[in-house]
Amino acid sequence: MGKNLTKRSEDYSKWYNELVVKADLAENSAVRGCMVIKPYGFAIWEKMQAELDKKFKETGHENAYFPLFVPKSLFEAEEKNAEGFAKECAVVTHYRLKTDPDNEGKLIVDPEAKLQEELVVRPTSEAIIWNTYKGWIQSYRDLPLLINQWANVVRWEMRTRLFLRTAEFLWQEGHTAHATKEEAIAEADLINNLYATFVENFLAVPVIKGLKTESERFAGADETFCIEALMQDGKALQAGTSHFLGQNFAKAFDVKFATKEGKQEYVWATSWGVSTRLMGALIMTHSDDQGLVLPPNLAPYQVVIVPIYRNQEQLDAISQVANEIVNDLRLHNVSVKFDNRDTHKPGWKFNEYELKGVPLRIGIGPKDLEKRTVELARRDTLTKEFVPKEDVVKTVVQLLKEIQDNLYNKAKDYRDSHITAVQNFDEFKEVLETKGGFISAHWDGTNETENKIKELTKATIRCIPLDNPKEDGICVYSGAQSTQRVLFAKAY
Amino acid sequence: MGKNLTKRSEDYSKWYNELVVKADLAENSAVRGCMVIKPYGFAIWEKMQAELDKKFKETGHENAYFPLFVPKSLFEAEEKNAEGFAKECAVVTHYRLKTDPDNEGKLIVDPEAKLQEELVVRPTSEAIIWNTYKGWIQSYRDLPLLINQWANVVRWEMRTRLFLRTAEFLWQEGHTAHATKEEAIAEADLINNLYATFVENFLAVPVIKGLKTESERFAGADETFCIEALMQDGKALQAGTSHFLGQNFAKAFDVKFATKEGKQEYVWATSWGVSTRLMGALIMTHSDDQGLVLPPNLAPYQVVIVPIYRNQEQLDAISQVANEIVNDLRLHNVSVKFDNRDTHKPGWKFNEYELKGVPLRIGIGPKDLEKRTVELARRDTLTKEFVPKEDVVKTVVQLLKEIQDNLYNKAKDYRDSHITAVQNFDEFKEVLETKGGFISAHWDGTNETENKIKELTKATIRCIPLDNPKEDGICVYSGAQSTQRVLFAKAY
Repeated sequence: MGKNLTKRSEDYSKWYNELVVKADLAENSAVRGCMVIKPYGFAIWEKMQAELDKKFKETGHENAYFPLFVPKSLFEAEEKNAEGFAKECAVVTHYRLKTDPDNEGKLIVDPEAKLQEELVVRPTSEAIIWNTYKGWIQSYRDLPLLINQWANVVRWEMRTRLFLRTAEFLWQEGHTAHATKEEAIAEADLINNLYATFVENFLAVPVIKGLKTESERFAGADETFCIEALMQDGKALQAGTSHFLGQNFAKAFDVKFATKEGKQEYVWATSWGVSTRLMGALIMTHSDDQGLVLPPNLAPYQVVIVPIYRNQEQLDAISQVANEIVNDLRLHNVSVKFDNRDTHKPGWKFNEYELKGVPLRIGIGPKDLEKRTVELARRDTLTKEFVPKEDVVKTVVQLLKEIQDNLYNKAKDYRDSHITAVQNFDEFKEVLETKGGFISAHWDGTNETENKIKELTKATIRCIPLDNPKEDGICVYSGAQSTQRVLFAKAY
Repeated sequence: MGKNLTKRSEDYSKWYNELVVKADLAENSAVRGCMVIKPYGFAIWEKMQAELDKKFKETGHENAYFPLFVPKSLFEAEEKNAEGFAKECAVVTHYRLKTDPDNEGKLIVDPEAKLQEELVVRPTSEAIIWNTYKGWIQSYRDLPLLINQWANVVRWEMRTRLFLRTAEFLWQEGHTAHATKEEAIAEADLINNLYATFVENFLAVPVIKGLKTESERFAGADETFCIEALMQDGKALQAGTSHFLGQNFAKAFDVKFATKEGKQEYVWATSWGVSTRLMGALIMTHSDDQGLVLPPNLAPYQVVIVPIYRNQEQLDAISQVANEIVNDLRLHNVSVKFDNRDTHKPGWKFNEYELKGVPLRIGIGPKDLEKRTVELARRDTLTKEFVPKEDVVKTVVQLLKEIQDNLYNKAKDYRDSHITAVQNFDEFKEVLETKGGFISAHWDGTNETENKIKELTKATIRCIPLDNPKEDGICVYSGAQSTQRVLFAKAY
């Protein structure tokens, strides 16, 4: 009956790994570092995709698809970018296997099928896309070009964790081209705001919008906007990034356009992405020792109905009521599952749906039929109430809204109470070790200090918040002058 | 002004290649054999995906995601399957590039980052999926398992053509597991019917449902259901396949389940897929020498409105009428684009939307404003009519339905008039060379005869139609006894 789930307080990391598998979200595959996303987990990802895709289209973006492979020569054309990814990319060198002549039935790589030029499995698509844009952009009439791609990418990470860091992951990557610098910066900012709104309203995860420091920036970017979330263990998680790429890729791939006045100018660019990593943020923000807790806006089904019966007659009577509720709820756009499987007992089902984080569970037994009530259980608070049958729809609709809000507020309270302003490095280290969370501290603006702090504490600058007030102060590490605080944290 | 499109009668193949590029559907990329699917082409593919995905879910299937890579050892575990794909698969052998010490800035494959076991980029996912299902299936309670995946796959084809045969392509692959043989066969048949209905109702492409002969079957399958379409040049195109896999994969990956009675049995399987190849079928079935012709059910926008004006005043007046029409059409679920760009002339736009196959074009000029009419042009018949403004919505809704039906009927007439029954091999060869299309002929049922006919004529058996009447006869090639006719054709 128990879920056999490690407690968060015992080992947060182990709790997470177990939960992802036990709640049927994902599992490790036969390929090192690559995951299988199971139907229940994928259904959540599909809901994220649907909402983001709608928002991208509403803001004028179109989807397209670019090749999985990047020829090595294109990859190295954008030097800065290549530097960052060359160390962790899967490389295709051959295009055929053949039967081993010395070992019948076994396959070996056919040495005669060596590619003239090796192909990198895309770790991100700037190179292949900007090489394509060169053919698409001639004049100001072709701009802006606002394109998104839903795709798989591969980064050969050495230490992987389900959803958080996998060798292959799913994401969307937007790649836009603009006539002016201002327009490109506005696009990067627009998308960062779109991400923030989505993550807050759908994942119910509060985020801080900010800019990355130079050393934390995407290699090819002039400026990286980001949204940063805080997990229950006090570690930060970067939930999305939106890059202003300046003219770096336009120059690397020679993409110019004729202005209205007939001048040739380099194009300005952005790129931006969120990935299946968001699943990690979702899981770690809300879930508890009983299992997953899902916000109603992303739950594959928001309500599950479990019949409690001893014989077929009881089941028939309960099913009639259950089916009425199912129909009523669907009319009100509530997604609901009636689990009438006779292969599993009610207790097993209660346990299963608690583990899977279904926001509301309705139990109906013979006594409920008599009283014309149902038992309604909330996953977020683990509270139960009896509700008259005629009030079920109204109550469910209201509770789903309440649960969505409650999850966000709870996470925001935790996050807000875990932003600590410190005055000196001793305080910095103490807060980091005892309390965790974001540390708001003055920094002298140098890479050197940033690296030194990272080396000493493992904390990095998560972001310079966009709404940061200017405040004169002294760098916690170097003692040099500083004009604003930045947010440090240990991070996923 | 002209479209510079090769005529179909001159060079059908060249016409197709040019059309795909000029209509902004797709183009070749910097990676040999891999295409870029452009936004306009991808919007059509997205509409196909949305409809198929809905139908899969309505029939109880769930989506999931499995790794891009298949370890070589898993690949070879299913020998028959591996044999078919080993000759054309991309192989990842290394996981890192490094800077060439002899040539600064250039990247080379780091010989120290060689994988212990090579990874095949999935040409199809049976191996990795069945290796996963082993952990998911223990008892009859876990069955049926009805899973679909939307993914990219890679087959290192030597001769590629946009959409029809590319090294990387997009598809969906369903992989199901069942307790009984009957159930698995019923599933394969269900999906083949689902494909047929979809292709006929959405692509407006008539198909023949049938079974593949042993030599045309998927290597791991006991039976392959298929849908076969006919292109305007008289060549057939396989539009989808649905395989009954028997217990082949269950045995190769040792996937057994406990029956209700507690016996251990191997699971029965199906797999099925359609791909971006459907884009090729769509384009080749309906399009003409003026460009693409799209069925309304798949057009990214069904109606385009082009204003014809000489000055801003005229444009303002026209825009007012156009925007009213846009709103009215959207209320009736018609997708419409108002192209008020001042960067292009009306003539250029007319040409562009004809090339892009937009089903209906509405032109509005100053004279139309006076008369309170608009000019409505049908892409399929290239006919025009003037319609009173108040009748636009009604007329458009009716015409879209008419166009969808007309395209299907036209294609069906062509297809039906290109199924020719022949009695002997001379007739067979003559029809194949002069008329093309499907040839209905008696066949003795042997691989030998099938191969010989293929060798002599390049025609293959496209399918044994499911609704084939039994008819005694004599094989066109061998003269041996036969009980039914089968359909031969040259094929894409």
